Amino acid sequence: MTVIEESTLLPNGLTVDAARAESARAYELDRAHVFHSWSAQAEITPMTISAAQGSYLWDGEGNRLLDFSSQLVNTNIGHQHPKVVAAIAEQAAKLCTVAPQHANAARSEAARLIAERTPGELNKIFFTNGGADAVEHAVRMARLHTGRYKVLSRYRAYHGGTDTAINLTGDPRRWPNDRGNAGVVHFNGPFLYRSSFYAETEEQESQRALEYLEKLIQMEGPSTIAAIILESIPGTAGIMIPPPGYMAGVREICTRYGIVFIADEVMSGFGRSGKWFSINHFDVTPDLMTFAKGVNSGYVPLGGVAINPEIAETFAHRAYPGGLTYSGHPLATAAAIATINAMEDEGMVDNAATVGTEVIGPGLAALADKHPSIGEVRGAGVFWAVELVKDRATREPLAAYGGSSPAMNAVVAACKAGGLLPFANFNRIHVVPPCNVSADEVREGLAILDAALDVADAAL
Amino acid sequence: MTVIEESTLLPNGLTVDAARAESARAYELDRAHVFHSWSAQAEITPMTISAAQGSYLWDGEGNRLLDFSSQLVNTNIGHQHPKVVAAIAEQAAKLCTVAPQHANAARSEAARLIAERTPGELNKIFFTNGGADAVEHAVRMARLHTGRYKVLSRYRAYHGGTDTAINLTGDPRRWPNDRGNAGVVHFNGPFLYRSSFYAETEEQESQRALEYLEKLIQMEGPSTIAAIILESIPGTAGIMIPPPGYMAGVREICTRYGIVFIADEVMSGFGRSGKWFSINHFDVTPDLMTFAKGVNSGYVPLGGVAINPEIAETFAHRAYPGGLTYSGHPLATAAAIATINAMEDEGMVDNAATVGTEVIGPGLAALADKHPSIGEVRGAGVFWAVELVKDRATREPLAAYGGSSPAMNAVVAACKAGGLLPFANFNRIHVVPPCNVSADEVREGLAILDAALDVADAAL
Repeated sequence: MTVIEESTLLPNGLTVDAARAESARAYELDRAHVFHSWSAQAEITPMTISAAQGSYLWDGEGNRLLDFSSQLVNTNIGHQHPKVVAAIAEQAAKLCTVAPQHANAARSEAARLIAERTPGELNKIFFTNGGADAVEHAVRMARLHTGRYKVLSRYRAYHGGTDTAINLTGDPRRWPNDRGNAGVVHFNGPFLYRSSFYAETEEQESQRALEYLEKLIQMEGPSTIAAIILESIPGTAGIMIPPPGYMAGVREICTRYGIVFIADEVMSGFGRSGKWFSINHFDVTPDLMTFAKGVNSGYVPLGGVAINPEIAETFAHRAYPGGLTYSGHPLATAAAIATINAMEDEGMVDNAATVGTEVIGPGLAALADKHPSIGEVRGAGVFWAVELVKDRATREPLAAYGGSSPAMNAVVAACKAGGLLPFANFNRIHVVPPCNVSADEVREGLAILDAALDVADAAL
Repeated sequence: MTVIEESTLLPNGLTVDAARAESARAYELDRAHVFHSWSAQAEITPMTISAAQGSYLWDGEGNRLLDFSSQLVNTNIGHQHPKVVAAIAEQAAKLCTVAPQHANAARSEAARLIAERTPGELNKIFFTNGGADAVEHAVRMARLHTGRYKVLSRYRAYHGGTDTAINLTGDPRRWPNDRGNAGVVHFNGPFLYRSSFYAETEEQESQRALEYLEKLIQMEGPSTIAAIILESIPGTAGIMIPPPGYMAGVREICTRYGIVFIADEVMSGFGRSGKWFSINHFDVTPDLMTFAKGVNSGYVPLGGVAINPEIAETFAHRAYPGGLTYSGHPLATAAAIATINAMEDEGMVDNAATVGTEVIGPGLAALADKHPSIGEVRGAGVFWAVELVKDRATREPLAAYGGSSPAMNAVVAACKAGGLLPFANFNRIHVVPPCNVSADEVREGLAILDAALDVADAAL
């Protein structure tokens, strides 16, 4: 971590001393009054974030950290982008909120900009507050459109924290919430490194995963299945890029059986993998597409569903039975407009692609050559996973599925001590900086990761 | 409606001409790309909102309307309060977003201000994006805390649009989403004007509603029931103030059977009924309390759950299995800080109480004396319902439960033509202006409503 002089000004305009005092108070009140997500409340010691700028943030002590987490993989344009900050202030001064039944210029323009970028004719946008309720509403649309109830989703997936979304989720966060009868059937998706199909090549993995899915549909009963929901590239579950042919195969199966194909782009969308949406890698158009996070980098809570004409038509003369007070919130959609325009004007999606191909990919490959604790690296754009293992031959993970381990905790601690905030999940470190990260910042981060991985190697 | 000169400047700084051009474009894009809440998409003609200030807003034609809807009963401090607008711009410049696992000064201070105002020891705050996910998480906490699954909620209630929340809802918006087996049991709550208990006095209604609830619990099996959720004063369902003793009775029943009492204050909280929370009218402390809307007047999407020490302790050393990317969002919580402080400093809660007692209540009583179409008026603070009927003796509503009618549509149209934006639901007009509405603004609005009710009388 960088040692900071007391008199240095942080990007928030506070001296380090003032920031420390503010952060100490923030921490004290946090422990007294804030109930945190996904946590045993008495066993956490949250890091205070005092300031942030671009790819960096400053903790409560005034230490600068390179943010390779993009928080929860949402600050795709980095922290405090001046154009978005200005747009928020401008819209706040103009009009903060209107009810969803009315129309508003900010909401309309954001819908246009999003519809322009979605694949195919996903031209109607239903705005929500985040990813979870986007998934809730996409599932509802699919159920009412088809008149069927069941939804298929894959293991090793995350779809959100509300009840329907967490039951669709295919990772251990579902377990304490699992209702068993929630109308969800989970299936194995393609993941060659830990193949469920005894496959040896990507082609084999793809073909067998499709055969398995179709057989499952036949056994479950095609007429009972409303939708299949898939992250276009699964995110927190491990950034497993679907192998060639898989997504097109799912599309074809959905079409053949009259099943709605929902692509979940909450984490993978808006430039993350080097294209506007990760589904663009596969030349596939889903029927519904959920988004959040990158749509405005999370500067204001926003999510939504992009809807194809057939499903929109279902609700042309029949009321869609769902809604929310902040649907299409002016401030949130104004932030989306500024974000999308800044990403476009500053070539951030291309930057994500190039940095991925030229810097992150080769850089991680070099780390894999050097560190025996790395089992596999994979990804695209600014969306990469480093899979850490105890043994390359057995591929035994460095932390159990759903758990952590002293070795993983030590790697994360070494990253932070080196000035890098990583994104860690089970036995993986994800390299998920903003889309406008510079090549130099990536090199800086990979160097810190390099040193931290010595800790992992030592634990083998 | 006020006739506006073309050269007049609206509060958003646009001339009427410029605002009309912007609104025309907004409308066109809305119809092309925006999918609206609770609507048959081809059958709506949304009113564009171009600007707003205090208790007023301006439509796409530049017409000024007195906002007696507070949008969706959320702008408790009126539109564009300068202190909140400034706080949003200031926090945007400082730090827009952090991930929920970290701590931040804005979130901590908002949690403190909310915890300070909640009844009893509801001192831990879990922040969500809105009311629906607040309800989702409160229900999850109750289920995991008790180890039981079923939740009881009343008919004539609204709890949100996501799957669990809409299944808890006791109004027709649930019907197209009703899964039957969602772990919800609905019961009749007290509502003397349309009593389910053949009661003739408020005391009788209260006592019989409690007896009915307790018998229901005994038949359902107390050991199967995780929670009872009640709006402290039901909102959209009709603003029926619980009769004396009812809420205390529910509290006592919950305590006796080990059932978690969830008070839903999403619409009724933050000054709406003339106290910080509507539960304060009853000297009752629930175990969990949900909030949204008024917490920051919806200027930035925000909701949450206030948690008592016993339930917080359940998750002290056991991870709470839920969360969301924007939990405790800095921008949203900064808006909450400014809102709560402005409400406090400017005496808005007291203003709501006084305006309700001295102006709205007597004003609506006078309208009821005059208009035979009024069956009942009821409410508190700035939270009032006008129940319109075809016949005072039979109490037959002017629009069927779950529907609308030409007469109701005509009343709403007459209000708008007179310069008033009302909040209408089935056979009711709700008078729900901001908490800082002036007595003169209320009189102006009631005069317009007075004229519009002639239309209702004529339809009898």
